[in-house]
Amino acid sequence: MVEDRVYEALKRPIVGHLDPFFFEIVDEIRARLRPVFGSADGATLVISATGSGGMETCIANFVEPGCRFAVLANGYFCDRITEMARRYGAQVVRLEKPWGEAIPPDEAAHFIARHQPHIVAFVQAETSTGVYQPGAQFAQAAHAAGALVLADVVTSLGAMPVEADRNGIDIAYSCTQKGLSCPPGLSPIFLSRRALEKLHSRKSAPPSWYFDLRLLEEYYDAPRRYHHTAPISLFYALLEGLRLIETEGLESRWMRHRRHHLALVAGLQAMGLELLVAEPHRLWNLITPRVPSGIDDAAVRRHLLQQHGIDIAGGFGPLAGKIFRIGLMGPLASEHTTLLFLDAFEAALRSAGFRPNAHARTAAEQRYETLRESPVPIA
Amino acid sequence: MVEDRVYEALKRPIVGHLDPFFFEIVDEIRARLRPVFGSADGATLVISATGSGGMETCIANFVEPGCRFAVLANGYFCDRITEMARRYGAQVVRLEKPWGEAIPPDEAAHFIARHQPHIVAFVQAETSTGVYQPGAQFAQAAHAAGALVLADVVTSLGAMPVEADRNGIDIAYSCTQKGLSCPPGLSPIFLSRRALEKLHSRKSAPPSWYFDLRLLEEYYDAPRRYHHTAPISLFYALLEGLRLIETEGLESRWMRHRRHHLALVAGLQAMGLELLVAEPHRLWNLITPRVPSGIDDAAVRRHLLQQHGIDIAGGFGPLAGKIFRIGLMGPLASEHTTLLFLDAFEAALRSAGFRPNAHARTAAEQRYETLRESPVPIA
Repeated sequence: MVEDRVYEALKRPIVGHLDPFFFEIVDEIRARLRPVFGSADGATLVISATGSGGMETCIANFVEPGCRFAVLANGYFCDRITEMARRYGAQVVRLEKPWGEAIPPDEAAHFIARHQPHIVAFVQAETSTGVYQPGAQFAQAAHAAGALVLADVVTSLGAMPVEADRNGIDIAYSCTQKGLSCPPGLSPIFLSRRALEKLHSRKSAPPSWYFDLRLLEEYYDAPRRYHHTAPISLFYALLEGLRLIETEGLESRWMRHRRHHLALVAGLQAMGLELLVAEPHRLWNLITPRVPSGIDDAAVRRHLLQQHGIDIAGGFGPLAGKIFRIGLMGPLASEHTTLLFLDAFEAALRSAGFRPNAHARTAAEQRYETLRESPVPIA
Repeated sequence: MVEDRVYEALKRPIVGHLDPFFFEIVDEIRARLRPVFGSADGATLVISATGSGGMETCIANFVEPGCRFAVLANGYFCDRITEMARRYGAQVVRLEKPWGEAIPPDEAAHFIARHQPHIVAFVQAETSTGVYQPGAQFAQAAHAAGALVLADVVTSLGAMPVEADRNGIDIAYSCTQKGLSCPPGLSPIFLSRRALEKLHSRKSAPPSWYFDLRLLEEYYDAPRRYHHTAPISLFYALLEGLRLIETEGLESRWMRHRRHHLALVAGLQAMGLELLVAEPHRLWNLITPRVPSGIDDAAVRRHLLQQHGIDIAGGFGPLAGKIFRIGLMGPLASEHTTLLFLDAFEAALRSAGFRPNAHARTAAEQRYETLRESPVPIA
């Protein structure tokens, strides 16, 4: 869901891609992205493509042929990273865990020490499963091996802590349509000082010209040399989205997502649903209950869409038919939406033959009550 | 300039990237693009990146290492094509002409026959110089050598004839912010049946995943498998832009651009300005008079911007300081704008020390009069 203010920004008259006014907007966006990525001194940039374009940018610019590239693989986007890294000539090694499980840090450390990769990639917020892993322990092992840490923060940025500096992330990419609550079409990326040094000492140009970060730096920094015609309208929208985050406060925004996450989970569990992801590893803004045995997940989703106008996703790959994927982020992360959703979801599950243990709404309301009395700290 | 109706479309509420409503929009866009590209049976697709992303898509998917790639080079975007083709492993050969000249068809034919390339690339509408070359004679020679014809139609699409079928173009890319008068951010592309066959028989995957046309086909055609999250808002705008073209009629739109082009040129020449590009090779929507000797082009452009709020471009590369680049397209291609511009341009030139031979406006008005009496046919 996108706020009206962001839609209004989207339709402001476009200016030229070398107009000083446009660069003012770009500069403000880049400055505002830095704290959202959780960095004091790293660089931010916006790629004129969607999140997957940002993923490709981060891989294309840091993989050179022969590069040893480790993927901590536990979901769909880990596989996409693997595929892209291979296309750019990396030798990929993978530590594999079933979809929905977190990667145990000690296993990751052993794996990294054994393979001595140049890059260690992991997905901080796995949209296909709902697993969240901050990454600090992976980074410790990676840095000990001299590797750069590449993180997919597509679903975490703006909704929960990315904390690039604290977690030791060197390279990260995201999108605009999830935690930042803007329309899709741009990919904010982050580079630590260590990553910038590596970028600037790279010998060869990457095969991709459109995603070549050194050319993009010459456009967005001095000498502001023409590279491509940036999608001005989407930059207007992104800036407005970032201003809304400042108005709310970044930590308040995280807490809001967490509060409604906890209430939603209480409602789901009260009905007797199990969650795919174990407690400490859950994404706050993407909740993944298992489909109860004997229930047709497509029928439940169809009922939700047709009777209530609510669109939730199903699982895919090894999780097809096995989980629901419930997005609760941006303006939708509210008490009103959470309770409305739980009522509708309970009705949809009942219509598909499921018998809940208890009313979801009652449990969620109770959880809200206890959260009001004793708020849960972030960390 | 973007019409209000297009801005209104831009801010419509977004839907999911797998929503059937979104695919209806995509299908309508693709169908409406076909006649604008000038094809009866070719394929169209929209890339979620700007025009340069479309360029990279067309190169990445048709170049395999060792590919012999001929560039008919007479401007900036020919050099960009060269750079990208080399990055993707092509052996590039170039037929070079000075910026601003058209490529003589017989020279192109000899060059192609000698090098027997797999791909012949040319720029139909060269934004850096104002040269227009339909390409039919290049295509004849290219097809005789068994090559595919790749055309940059970034500035021609929607403003003047691309005519892919008639001109023998196999692969073409464009943008949304020029002849289609939409905000920037998407790249419409065209593939002939010959190009599609080549694409589908390709052995290796291209290094770029984001621009991989075979993956994009699986998203935009059956089985509509998730590839990336398309920038929905920009698709809304593009569809509205294409509907406006249908309302006006494609040929009427070309004629409109030509009419105002002719009047503008009459005004420029009456002042004593020379045009960089010889008569039969001029882009209608991008006019490039030479900067008169002794005149500071930056001072003229600054005066235009500050006193009249009109932004025109200067030359760059070998043409830096030597030409003005005047865009006259979309809603701006009107009698009102043309005359307004000529008055302002004359004042700006005078303020920089230039003494015009005659009033630009008077000459343009006379040209409009003769065009009303005997309209000029398109071809």
